[in-house]
Amino acid sequence: MSQTIRVSFDALRDFMDRAFRKAGLPDADALTVATLMAEAELQGSDGHGSIRLAPYLRRIREGGVNKHPVIRVEKEKAAMALINGDNGMGHLVMKRAAELAVEKARTAGVAWVGARLSNHAGPASLYARMCLPHDMIGLYMAVGNANHLPPWGGLTMLLSTNPVACAIPTAKEPPVVLDMATTVAAYGKVKAKAQRGEMMPEGWMIDRTGKPLLDPKRSDEGFLLPIGGHKGYGLALIIGLLAGTLNGAAMGKDVIDFNSDFANVGNTGQAMVAIDPAAFGDLDEFKAAVDVVVRDLRGSERMPGVERIWMPGEQSHEKRIANRAGGIALPPQLKASLDKTAADLDVAPLEVMD
Amino acid sequence: MSQTIRVSFDALRDFMDRAFRKAGLPDADALTVATLMAEAELQGSDGHGSIRLAPYLRRIREGGVNKHPVIRVEKEKAAMALINGDNGMGHLVMKRAAELAVEKARTAGVAWVGARLSNHAGPASLYARMCLPHDMIGLYMAVGNANHLPPWGGLTMLLSTNPVACAIPTAKEPPVVLDMATTVAAYGKVKAKAQRGEMMPEGWMIDRTGKPLLDPKRSDEGFLLPIGGHKGYGLALIIGLLAGTLNGAAMGKDVIDFNSDFANVGNTGQAMVAIDPAAFGDLDEFKAAVDVVVRDLRGSERMPGVERIWMPGEQSHEKRIANRAGGIALPPQLKASLDKTAADLDVAPLEVMD
Repeated sequence: MSQTIRVSFDALRDFMDRAFRKAGLPDADALTVATLMAEAELQGSDGHGSIRLAPYLRRIREGGVNKHPVIRVEKEKAAMALINGDNGMGHLVMKRAAELAVEKARTAGVAWVGARLSNHAGPASLYARMCLPHDMIGLYMAVGNANHLPPWGGLTMLLSTNPVACAIPTAKEPPVVLDMATTVAAYGKVKAKAQRGEMMPEGWMIDRTGKPLLDPKRSDEGFLLPIGGHKGYGLALIIGLLAGTLNGAAMGKDVIDFNSDFANVGNTGQAMVAIDPAAFGDLDEFKAAVDVVVRDLRGSERMPGVERIWMPGEQSHEKRIANRAGGIALPPQLKASLDKTAADLDVAPLEVMD
Repeated sequence: MSQTIRVSFDALRDFMDRAFRKAGLPDADALTVATLMAEAELQGSDGHGSIRLAPYLRRIREGGVNKHPVIRVEKEKAAMALINGDNGMGHLVMKRAAELAVEKARTAGVAWVGARLSNHAGPASLYARMCLPHDMIGLYMAVGNANHLPPWGGLTMLLSTNPVACAIPTAKEPPVVLDMATTVAAYGKVKAKAQRGEMMPEGWMIDRTGKPLLDPKRSDEGFLLPIGGHKGYGLALIIGLLAGTLNGAAMGKDVIDFNSDFANVGNTGQAMVAIDPAAFGDLDEFKAAVDVVVRDLRGSERMPGVERIWMPGEQSHEKRIANRAGGIALPPQLKASLDKTAADLDVAPLEVMD
């Protein structure tokens, strides 16, 4: 068995589509979720790609997700809406939220759409980026689906890695797309280190006495560090209040750990903001001005040993292009697990490239 | 001369009001700016209090600020506005922006007001907090008025400490108010260390080879570090694009250093967002839910040696109460500089408490 397994975007999407349909999602919903998960994998967000298929399917099987949600707008004003996700797959809820935010921003200039009774939706950037084809700026915030962060100075894990993403359209440059957890490392990266048998660098986690925790296999003995210490703690809290509490979604001690609980409703909260630059001035001038900033930053004098200055989102952009052309590399153990899923569900397995 | 000089909030406000009026600001504008600067000092944002009086007056004198601005709405939709500050004092522009955002959010649910041709407006939290009496959430972002940050891996200082603030109303707890620069330390803190003859802790600044820079007197030989490394760089960039470029304000290489240039128009950009929780659900339930999160976090088990878990904004809240009751402590050298300003302008000096 080769060490490098490559699969095409289409094959990955089609396989996950088959799996979700077989698991009972309606055809259109299965395709939407599968496509977004394949896009996550394509852009290198591998913690949100096919590795999530098995846990998602388990949640569907154990009743933690509603297979036939009636996703509906519960509250609405000119520039806002609150969506009740009816405990459907988060991808469906947030795609709807992004589309509604864009539609409302077209008229109001800016729109903020919150969601409650949603679920894990994959990488934050997927939804922020949905504004780009409409020449709009997208902002996304979410309450993470497991608490790994205590308040600054504390030991009780009451906060999640609450991520934020922002996508800004450009003229000729790749769009500027920031997608970040408010912790130094996302928890998925810790799990990946454990899987690969590697140690973590200092600064990712500390133990309960404040000492650096380096062994990812001991991650449940400590917690993630927020970026900038108390600042990252503040950011995680604010994002949690805006994406969770404001929407009547879970936040703080009400967040259930989706790594261990597959049967209960998580009431995940997320928020999506669309901003129409054309409301603020000339769209082309704005996009050209972003290009200038990007080029100036990229052209910065560099520190010794630095080969290249990266823009936020630029590495994902390059991965998207390379992986679409040459296929997406999957670790053999992930492919094996996907094959097991295929066998369990009795669907055709994921097709690999020649 | 006593080491501790204490002044009342009213005396500080009245003194700065006298100074600005004498310098040529209209009465109402002088009072607005003086009040906001005194509020900054009251809450412990001493880098934005009376220490800024002399540089602000110099900017007024040298023509870098318009004494008689016609602050006007240039673009407007249901949920947004772009304000042209006509190069007036930033405090005037952003107070107007906050008021307009609240007014629009009352109808639209959410509103985003950007500003161009504004100026330095003091601490970010002042404006985010203006939403609180209206039971709204306030978000504020600004392009800083001097570049101290290169792109991650770079040496050319093209980014500022671009701060973000968010104020969230509560029921019985102090409001949650985050106010943070996207750098580990704000530049004002470096200047304060230099003034006190102290060294900086590792992690605040690095020199051009990437080594820690500890002597604040050598700060022009290096640059500030963003929080979370590349993440803080990404945040500073995004905030700059949203608060600056989107509004047609200065960003990147166009930002002039207001510490050395007092005569040219800075075209400062800021953005103010108001969110009405009453549009998303029951206001009292929301505020009570925030209280619960605050109390849960405060009640967290603590790390060894940690006396208390703080909420963002709680220390400022306590300073506000203590300083209003007992007066604001000013360093003697600051009082001496304010006395010199009084003498230069021929206005009555700042009154100290008995």
